[in-house]
Amino acid sequence: MRIDFQTDPSRWRHWRLELDGPVANLVMDVDAAGSLFEGVELKLNSYDLGVDIELHDAIQRLRFEHPEVGAVVIRSGKENVFCAGANIRMLGKATHGHKVNFCKFTNETRCAIEDATWNSGQFYIAAVNGACAGGGYELAIAADHVMLIDDRRSSVALPETPLLAVLPGTGGLTRVTDKRKVRRDLADVFCSVEEGVRGKRAVDWRLVDEVVPPSAWAERVNARAAEFAAKTDRPKDAKGVALTPLDRRFEGDAVIYSRVRVECDRAARRATVTVMGPEGEPPATLDAAKDAGFWPLRMARELDDALLHLRGNEPDLGLLVFRTEGDAAQVLAHDAFLEAHKDDWFIREVQHFLKRVLKRVDLTSRSLVALIEPGSCFAGTLSELAFAADRSVMLSGTRAGDNRPPAALTLSTMNFGAYPMGNGLTRLQARFWGEPESVQHAQAATGEALDAERAEELGLVTLTYDEVDWDDEVRMMFEERASFSPDALTGMEANLRFVGPETMETRIFGRLTAWQNWIFQRPNAVGEHGALKLYGSGVQPTYDKQRV
Amino acid sequence: MRIDFQTDPSRWRHWRLELDGPVANLVMDVDAAGSLFEGVELKLNSYDLGVDIELHDAIQRLRFEHPEVGAVVIRSGKENVFCAGANIRMLGKATHGHKVNFCKFTNETRCAIEDATWNSGQFYIAAVNGACAGGGYELAIAADHVMLIDDRRSSVALPETPLLAVLPGTGGLTRVTDKRKVRRDLADVFCSVEEGVRGKRAVDWRLVDEVVPPSAWAERVNARAAEFAAKTDRPKDAKGVALTPLDRRFEGDAVIYSRVRVECDRAARRATVTVMGPEGEPPATLDAAKDAGFWPLRMARELDDALLHLRGNEPDLGLLVFRTEGDAAQVLAHDAFLEAHKDDWFIREVQHFLKRVLKRVDLTSRSLVALIEPGSCFAGTLSELAFAADRSVMLSGTRAGDNRPPAALTLSTMNFGAYPMGNGLTRLQARFWGEPESVQHAQAATGEALDAERAEELGLVTLTYDEVDWDDEVRMMFEERASFSPDALTGMEANLRFVGPETMETRIFGRLTAWQNWIFQRPNAVGEHGALKLYGSGVQPTYDKQRV
Repeated sequence: MRIDFQTDPSRWRHWRLELDGPVANLVMDVDAAGSLFEGVELKLNSYDLGVDIELHDAIQRLRFEHPEVGAVVIRSGKENVFCAGANIRMLGKATHGHKVNFCKFTNETRCAIEDATWNSGQFYIAAVNGACAGGGYELAIAADHVMLIDDRRSSVALPETPLLAVLPGTGGLTRVTDKRKVRRDLADVFCSVEEGVRGKRAVDWRLVDEVVPPSAWAERVNARAAEFAAKTDRPKDAKGVALTPLDRRFEGDAVIYSRVRVECDRAARRATVTVMGPEGEPPATLDAAKDAGFWPLRMARELDDALLHLRGNEPDLGLLVFRTEGDAAQVLAHDAFLEAHKDDWFIREVQHFLKRVLKRVDLTSRSLVALIEPGSCFAGTLSELAFAADRSVMLSGTRAGDNRPPAALTLSTMNFGAYPMGNGLTRLQARFWGEPESVQHAQAATGEALDAERAEELGLVTLTYDEVDWDDEVRMMFEERASFSPDALTGMEANLRFVGPETMETRIFGRLTAWQNWIFQRPNAVGEHGALKLYGSGVQPTYDKQRV
Repeated sequence: MRIDFQTDPSRWRHWRLELDGPVANLVMDVDAAGSLFEGVELKLNSYDLGVDIELHDAIQRLRFEHPEVGAVVIRSGKENVFCAGANIRMLGKATHGHKVNFCKFTNETRCAIEDATWNSGQFYIAAVNGACAGGGYELAIAADHVMLIDDRRSSVALPETPLLAVLPGTGGLTRVTDKRKVRRDLADVFCSVEEGVRGKRAVDWRLVDEVVPPSAWAERVNARAAEFAAKTDRPKDAKGVALTPLDRRFEGDAVIYSRVRVECDRAARRATVTVMGPEGEPPATLDAAKDAGFWPLRMARELDDALLHLRGNEPDLGLLVFRTEGDAAQVLAHDAFLEAHKDDWFIREVQHFLKRVLKRVDLTSRSLVALIEPGSCFAGTLSELAFAADRSVMLSGTRAGDNRPPAALTLSTMNFGAYPMGNGLTRLQARFWGEPESVQHAQAATGEALDAERAEELGLVTLTYDEVDWDDEVRMMFEERASFSPDALTGMEANLRFVGPETMETRIFGRLTAWQNWIFQRPNAVGEHGALKLYGSGVQPTYDKQRV
């Protein structure tokens, strides 16, 4: 079964969006019968990937379709339960690969909630009315303000370690210490207590921001939402941009979008992702840009879907080759358009979305190679694909019988701050870590069409070959990569791609996730007698008690 | 077989120390027949834990016993090979736990090389004369200056991914990007090339600092060593302090040192580590302190050995309980002595060694609990044990029939900068991350004997109980901890202990090591058809090509 990462509100089964002027209520009301996994019941607002795909869709739509919304309240549509976290039966049945990709996607989605709060004036509040455990609490603390009803039943908990022998894998441990600044020894106690923490102690320990008596709950939540909504810098009366269905079709081993094409070579375990530049000039006016057809938005949505599709449905394709096709001048013209209108709410959304898609590239556990050839348009925003790649290879000169000019790489202002990686660095800063003068040299070449020699001299590409060597060298590189252990490559790439500083975000995807992936391989969690397998069966797990 | 982490030059089989005034040559000349593992031949200067225990010993002795040494040159005693890295047959035979602990120890030892260079005026140089692969290159780049002979045979390489399906696990990936600042795409190429990189390219890519023609090699290495040695601030004519053998005996389930006692309760899977304060006042003079019997040094050596013993030989003991016994006033008097003489080379060594031992505590994958009871001396330096613990529990008031005063916790200046964690924070800064005023409140209480109520109020302990509840509460806490999955605890503790900033060091122990541990569980590396198992057999490994 192919997992489809596209959905829209008419198809949602698990979430409702209730709009109330500047406040949106995002109501989690999981349909227990709606799991992606056969035989799994999503009780107590527990979730699987399908539920999270809808959440991801809601977050995206709130940003683009609802400029008027300044505050989003995550609520539960069920009595007495906010969210019980990721469904354990699902985790018990899922392959290692599905678990890892599921956690990665849910983590990216929690980060998107913070991105909306911090960069887009759309402030998330969690209104925790009922039990809130594991992934439920991790969802809550993705919001910057967490309210907990003080009704003696409702608590927050991270019971993964005692109950399931795994970690809270959706950023919980990192956000508890780094974002909420819970004292580490109190965090240790909190993570050991199955029943969680409630009432005043939850506030004292900073697990929530406020507790509210039931009698005041409805009013207080609404008041807080209104208060936060009032702080937004989003326009009150702008018209949203509808995220219309993608133009996408599956054809044999290809996925064809309007500006992105994915071609799978299964024998070679490789997918080629070709991104096409704009069909023409940028819109004449800002208003004319406000449409899902606006090239940067359309391309970003298609590329995002392509990445998610490859991650979720094509685990055998270990190498992604990024190519571009089109007119670099038009890519640069669109970059200039983005730059000129960057204060507009919609353009801001487009830029942050491009940033998130590029982060998704950074976090994709496949080897990434960019091929820069005649006819390509690695310029400005699109050149970030080359900088995100593990290697970029550029053809020097032309090919016989091809009268297109030699390949060029062109930088724009967008390469110098618009799309920070998770570690806060631009991809060029990361590339030239410890070598800031090389970033300056590159910046001085902004706008120049850099040929292979010049690009190599500036350190912007890994390798260059002329026509004579190109085919053999590229083929050998692909074959070599395909011969390596995918696991070692995953670890190697996860280390080399993120140099220097770490942030809460990179700590979640680096330290926390790496440990969780290790635990997801350990018999104490996933073995026949492990906690994930036996949860709910009434049988106690048996642990190998050795520490390693 | 019990692994002994203590050794001395008379017992070394794999290293030689050749002293030449301010320069020491540390010569690796591994005895192939001297492996800890039966049937493993340590060919080509490949190493196992036994080889690294000697290296660790050498580094320690150079700091304490050789104040006159300002530069240390790591050389090979073999022809045409510098070091082939960790022995693969050994890795193939070792348990997962041994592999993980082996890597942790070797990583700590590489960090100790950097600590000597950066904090102790003892500058390490790697003189790479011959093949230098994997762990061999990781050893070389622990030195700040790497010289490579330009003889067409000698190269540096990290061939783990192509050859072994694992990562360079001793900091290689992190040091390549973060310390040597190799461009990430060049690092990707470097880590894919079995045969490595040599000559000018090795310099251009920053893999080494200089290449030297064979004709100039001996002279150039000596000149560099002299040059670096001349920069030291170590005294030229001071007398070293001999690290005499530890006073240690194994008695049944206990290990008894002069100021440290380890008692193992195997049924409860717990070890109690009791650290005893000084027997009396600090020495009357600085000169009188310069002896292996000086309490801070003796205690640190004993505690370090106890930790290594527990890690290496007692994997079943998942919980370490830290206790102290003695006179807090004398601990504080020794702290004052350290502070008063901190500019002396020997006192500096003692302080940095205490720092390293405390880091070893932070990195110990066991649950750590400090019990603060009447008769204890959690003061200054020793109170760091309570701050390093996952939880600290303090008895409030006295016990019936015990006429000792209530327990106290006392801070000294040493708690505010002398012993930074790997992330650069003091343990109190980490404890109060995002709450700097709490660090100030604690600092204002320096010197006060804080009883349980006051310590709790200042946030310095996790839990307090009076006599009535103590036994039951502590027992239940221990039982609860012992019931959890050791793997989940390892992951949880590795995340909660290191809040906030990351450094190269924490990235090595967090991101890199966590990924390596994951890979060490994956069939592509350790399965029957995995690369680690089949290496050298002539049979090609078979990989599951799915990415996760």
